[in-house]
Amino acid sequence: MKRVIVKCPGTVANLVCGFDVLGLALQEPADILELQLIDEPVVRITNRDAYNLPTEPEKNVAGVVLLSIMQHCNNAFGFEVAIEKRIKPGSGIGSSAASAAGAAVAANYLLNNQFTKEELVQFAMNGEKLASGVKHADNIAPGIYGGVTLIRSIYPLDIISIDAPSLFVTVVHPQIEVRTSDARQILKQQVQLKDAIRQWGNVAGLVAGFMKGDYELIGRSLEDVIIEPVRSILIPGFDAVKKDCIDAGALGGGISGSGPSIFMLSKDAVTANKVAAVMQNVYQQIGIDHHVYVTAINKSGVTVVEEG
Amino acid sequence: MKRVIVKCPGTVANLVCGFDVLGLALQEPADILELQLIDEPVVRITNRDAYNLPTEPEKNVAGVVLLSIMQHCNNAFGFEVAIEKRIKPGSGIGSSAASAAGAAVAANYLLNNQFTKEELVQFAMNGEKLASGVKHADNIAPGIYGGVTLIRSIYPLDIISIDAPSLFVTVVHPQIEVRTSDARQILKQQVQLKDAIRQWGNVAGLVAGFMKGDYELIGRSLEDVIIEPVRSILIPGFDAVKKDCIDAGALGGGISGSGPSIFMLSKDAVTANKVAAVMQNVYQQIGIDHHVYVTAINKSGVTVVEEG
Repeated sequence: MKRVIVKCPGTVANLVCGFDVLGLALQEPADILELQLIDEPVVRITNRDAYNLPTEPEKNVAGVVLLSIMQHCNNAFGFEVAIEKRIKPGSGIGSSAASAAGAAVAANYLLNNQFTKEELVQFAMNGEKLASGVKHADNIAPGIYGGVTLIRSIYPLDIISIDAPSLFVTVVHPQIEVRTSDARQILKQQVQLKDAIRQWGNVAGLVAGFMKGDYELIGRSLEDVIIEPVRSILIPGFDAVKKDCIDAGALGGGISGSGPSIFMLSKDAVTANKVAAVMQNVYQQIGIDHHVYVTAINKSGVTVVEEG
Repeated sequence: MKRVIVKCPGTVANLVCGFDVLGLALQEPADILELQLIDEPVVRITNRDAYNLPTEPEKNVAGVVLLSIMQHCNNAFGFEVAIEKRIKPGSGIGSSAASAAGAAVAANYLLNNQFTKEELVQFAMNGEKLASGVKHADNIAPGIYGGVTLIRSIYPLDIISIDAPSLFVTVVHPQIEVRTSDARQILKQQVQLKDAIRQWGNVAGLVAGFMKGDYELIGRSLEDVIIEPVRSILIPGFDAVKKDCIDAGALGGGISGSGPSIFMLSKDAVTANKVAAVMQNVYQQIGIDHHVYVTAINKSGVTVVEEG
């Protein structure tokens, strides 16, 4: 039967001021997912990594996405999937979304690309529902569309690709646990109107900055007066990382998704590497294990790397 | 001494979802302002209309703007200004901002364009402070820059011009009074986070829609879940106007500034005229006097029409 191997990129959701509506895809890290179409209407999952994620399809992010696609097609077929996770679960750079988006894109490839990208996002959101309890698309959408995406609305789904200039992304993942559910619970359900106005001024500025290729405007707009002041408390070293990275020349940045990873955008690779050194320095001083990635925006999202 | 005549366009602030941050300039209506440089460090004001606005410089919108420019220049000169207001005060399409922006641009012209547009906005905001008690720039900025403008921040001032495709604007001004101060007081100072997220998704969508020239996206993004539900109560006929205009083909629209005027955007002139007829019909049925304008976006802002 037909099989395909896809590369599923990590993603940064929220982009500081764009809580729940903006996201971007990274070139690295990325999961590798191999999918095969089978006659039997079941999903069989193999892990090719050490994370020991569940292999029962109903409890596995890729599994529930594949089940939803099978159900849509009256269970006329099934899948065997093998997943090599390279994006550590819980890191805040879209590990679950990579599995979900990867499974949806790979399945679509084997089914002769019968679904639109928007339909793939719908299927993949079932994986996010399993992972975090909420159908959100701010990691899924950039994972499937590539580049920077705006999720204007979830009901009805409305995804807009936002052109962006060349940007380098430095990500540090301090090895501490921040649960998405905790990061959600800590948020206040009411916000000051004046803060909301400042936030939507920044969101508008960030979108305009991306589309104009105006790096200074991107930098000025990377300000979050609502979420970051609350959530950053959960991430040791956050304030030092942010200050030192901007001093080192980063345009700006903040919490990736619900954390604990922190991302910074830079105009060039030299600065992005300086920023990486600064991040490492902060976590070495605090004594927290960490990984740092220096990468760029991935313009294509999940991609087929082998077919046959 | 040198004199200049400028045309000062009306403006639509807020643009539905972009409360306090977005605005656009109209081709019509527009005030006419004649300004002359004089040696004596005073401001003398003549009204060329029937609105009977104050002629004491400290109580006149154009007056305070001119005084602030004189003060900046150590009162080395003064101005004689004659104003023909064609934008009815209190209409919600930037009548005070037209005087303020017009005075600033005209003075700058007579002073050999020594100030940047951003500096002119700073001077002109003194007029808005007098008119509404608040230094806001969402009418001033489009009046001076033309087109669609984003005011990302007031402190520090950060104005971004947003490219937009050809758009026709229909405005109805029902002849009722809504005070800006009342329209501000009615707003809740706290909003639901989920509503704020929906709003900044729409603001981002509107900016992207303008910059992509995507009319459908502009239409979908013209949704306000925070301000309009509260303020529209002050405008009789609002719901009927909005529904009927969209049925007639308008992309969308809402309250202009703090009202009572209502604006609608259309892709072409034929639709904009249909929308005008629909607006007239609603207010004829309710029995409220009204003016309707069918116009387009003014790309240049305040312009010099005569010099010498």
